[in-house]
Amino acid sequence: MARTCSIARALDVIGEKWSLLAIREVFLGSFKFTEIQANTGAPRDILSDRLRKLVDGGVMERVAYQDRPQRFEYRLTPVGKDLFAAITVIREWGDRHCGEPPRVFQHACGAVLATKLVCRSCNEEVTERSVRPIKNATSDRADRPG
Amino acid sequence: MARTCSIARALDVIGEKWSLLAIREVFLGSFKFTEIQANTGAPRDILSDRLRKLVDGGVMERVAYQDRPQRFEYRLTPVGKDLFAAITVIREWGDRHCGEPPRVFQHACGAVLATKLVCRSCNEEVTERSVRPIKNATSDRADRPG
Repeated sequence: MARTCSIARALDVIGEKWSLLAIREVFLGSFKFTEIQANTGAPRDILSDRLRKLVDGGVMERVAYQDRPQRFEYRLTPVGKDLFAAITVIREWGDRHCGEPPRVFQHACGAVLATKLVCRSCNEEVTERSVRPIKNATSDRADRPG
Repeated sequence: MARTCSIARALDVIGEKWSLLAIREVFLGSFKFTEIQANTGAPRDILSDRLRKLVDGGVMERVAYQDRPQRFEYRLTPVGKDLFAAITVIREWGDRHCGEPPRVFQHACGAVLATKLVCRSCNEEVTERSVRPIKNATSDRADRPG
């Protein structure tokens, strides 16, 4: 039986290339369908489907910005804004391994943005080697297979 | 014209649900196709395709662990291991918004793992509001549309 997992549930909502690119666009300030479509290059049908899924999943909301004719734009909900760290970490991974960064960000402190993931408890960087899974009483699957 | 972007390039390699779930499995210690398949619940054909893409993209490598008959398992390359932060951030987002966490991790300091993304320069938490895009001389697209 497949492991239930927050990653799997998260990916049911956001785990598709065009979904994450649409979220990126809204973070960058493109709120209208036509802008999101132009900047991502997503096929219209697919983008339309992905945006509907993001709205249904509570990540985005459609907000009317004009009455006659009524027109909508897409905004991130608080749940969607909470994806900022995920988008940032994936972007930096892409910068390191997939070619030249086409876009640079500046942090509030003035530095060019480069991030690290740290433990909220000890503030040390979190890496593959500094983390281990522990059993969880509520898990339906406490042991490793094989 | 669509924006070129490290996120888009990254998602060409990892931007699909089963790809990220397969990466999660290898991080958790499932290296064999049958284990990855059982734990993710991915259809065999799709998983096989996604693993091939991850190998081609330099995220995983196939390593022989038996000679007669020859059998392979999947291991993360250094590029793949560098996805640990992305997997962690997506998992924690899922924990916060998609239901009960089925798995708990412990950091080396002893605390139950909860992370935050900080600026490498000032060590302050990085949020949507503390970051702004800046123009980049090498960008093919310096201005925002619309």
